Amino acid sequence: MKKLIVGVMGGGEGASPEVCELAYKLGGLIADEGWVLLNGGWGVGVMDASARGAKEHNGLTVGILPDRNTEEASAFIDIPILTGMGDGRNFINILTSHIVVALPGRSGTISEIALALKNGKNVILLNFPLGDLFVEYQKAGIMVSVSKPEEVIETIKQICPVQNSEKLDA
Amino acid sequence: MKKLIVGVMGGGEGASPEVCELAYKLGGLIADEGWVLLNGGWGVGVMDASARGAKEHNGLTVGILPDRNTEEASAFIDIPILTGMGDGRNFINILTSHIVVALPGRSGTISEIALALKNGKNVILLNFPLGDLFVEYQKAGIMVSVSKPEEVIETIKQICPVQNSEKLDA
Amino acid sequence: MKKLIVGVMGGGEGASPEVCELAYKLGGLIADEGWVLLNGGWGVGVMDASARGAKEHNGLTVGILPDRNTEEASAFIDIPILTGMGDGRNFINILTSHIVVALPGRSGTISEIALALKNGKNVILLNFPLGDLFVEYQKAGIMVSVSKPEEVIETIKQICPVQNSEKLDA
Amino acid sequence: MKKLIVGVMGGGEGASPEVCELAYKLGGLIADEGWVLLNGGWGVGVMDASARGAKEHNGLTVGILPDRNTEEASAFIDIPILTGMGDGRNFINILTSHIVVALPGRSGTISEIALALKNGKNVILLNFPLGDLFVEYQKAGIMVSVSKPEEVIETIKQICPVQNSEKLDA
Repeated sequence: MKKLIVGVMGGGEGASPEVCELAYKLGGLIADEGWVLLNGGWGVGVMDASARGAKEHNGLTVGILPDRNTEEASAFIDIPILTGMGDGRNFINILTSHIVVALPGRSGTISEIALALKNGKNVILLNFPLGDLFVEYQKAGIMVSVSKPEEVIETIKQICPVQNSEKLDA
Repeated sequence: MKKLIVGVMGGGEGASPEVCELAYKLGGLIADEGWVLLNGGWGVGVMDASARGAKEHNGLTVGILPDRNTEEASAFIDIPILTGMGDGRNFINILTSHIVVALPGRSGTISEIALALKNGKNVILLNFPLGDLFVEYQKAGIMVSVSKPEEVIETIKQICPVQNSEKLDA
Repeated sequence: MKKLIVGVMGGGEGASPEVCELAYKLGGLIADEGWVLLNGGWGVGVMDASARGAKEHNGLTVGILPDRNTEEASAFIDIPILTGMGDGRNFINILTSHIVVALPGRSGTISEIALALKNGKNVILLNFPLGDLFVEYQKAGIMVSVSKPEEVIETIKQICPVQNSEKLDA
Repeated sequence: MKKLIVGVMGGGEGASPEVCELAYKLGGLIADEGWVLLNGGWGVGVMDASARGAKEHNGLTVGILPDRNTEEASAFIDIPILTGMGDGRNFINILTSHIVVALPGRSGTISEIALALKNGKNVILLNFPLGDLFVEYQKAGIMVSVSKPEEVIETIKQICPVQNSEKLDA
């Protein structure tokens, strides 16, 4: 069994300090569980903050970069995957993640939520109200909303019960 | 100057007959202007209907397929572009379109709207209410809502004034 | 039945005048058959020359560009497909082509030949000796070598007999 | 400074036992240096053997899979990156690798060598004669040929002198 890969999406340069603080805490909690943190890999916003949180808790971080080099990469990304395909890489982000967490963001984050739902991935919204946009997924329990990083971890454990850190062999 | 390429997005198998009828009419109107119709290329829903409309009006149709072969392609697509990259091709759809029209759809269509807005493309919603999701783009006039296919054409002419059929040389 | 799409690969900026002249003639012959010319879309080398030849013979030209905009596109490309994925688009070039013709080029062209052969496409080398590199494909008749543009057309007709212009309905 | 990522390419199902043995040894040596092993991720041939070697030496392994799920993934891959883009992922393989090692393979491997050279990556051929195909890169020292796994390691240290394990902080 492989380590669980948790995708953390959310705003880039425009992310507020509060959102970055949430992302930072979430990154640490994901690392504490022994899970791999995956994000878009840039050194700004939710990407940088979540990776920093994970690294301060000795986690492993993977960034799926839109670029052909690591100039924009976060210093807290262990494995920068260079796709060279711009936002086309959003699809790789969600395919590779076992589960997707979305913090407040704009069109890029929404595209990732939409692609995740279309491809059968569970989505956890952390303080990110989306109105009725994906209401059918919410009713089906595929997309859920929480307000604290700790709830994200609990929700992941409920959705992926055997994937907690004690049972991982990798 | 190249022909204008109009991307038409919307529901696949789940699209209602009313939505498909709208797509069919829109496809014909796009062809009448001498514009190229681009969509996702499958033989279902908005993709098939819009391509059929364009072909019945002697238009040129381009389908950006997620597949590695043409088994799922609409019979009304002239140029099937085989990407072999699944929903990753949504990014190519919007990059290649000069302007994007979205009819009612679900997560796939929403991912395309989001990617279009993120990448600076104008989006015209045809009978597709999205709530407040992209309200900042609506306020800025980058995303507009209309209710008839004819209004789509008029809106495109306003946004891309020199790109009407009389002035195209290709 | 769709129009046959012939991919024409070869050198970019480094292509010699002789190679460009061959590409130009080949483009014209492809257009004369009513086939669609596909290439990498840039305004240099074999890409530009083959597209120019096709347009002077009233052909239809499709360019699969590595870029996110048309700044580098050949003026002779009718349909610029913007992939935004760099050389990752080479795979789309060969998937979309029914048959691949390769003129002299360097590593980019060789990557396309290799991807074509791996994915079951026939390859016609036009004045492009490759040594023993793909000798098993040559022995199997999947890759053939010719020295004149007219031979390319004849070879395509032998390989794809029903795809000549009289029998196309699109 | 990030860990060095070494891409190991080569044959899949058709790889001989001798080639797989070489790949297995190379994977172990890469892990011994503290470097990350990257390959195409499948559970066959050079991919599986090199990942197995790395894991037996406590290395970290990344697989860039062409697929949308992990059904074909090697059991020895820690981080399966799901691209869903078929051979289009070969470009990601080489962009992400700091240096590329190629063992004997066929058209897929050759496409990766070609893409690597085109994109400025050094290539080390391990027992894989390619004739004169990329002779200009060989003359320039960008592509070199060796016959033993140990020579691969030495060559990497010469090319990337500061990237040896003592100086890595990740």
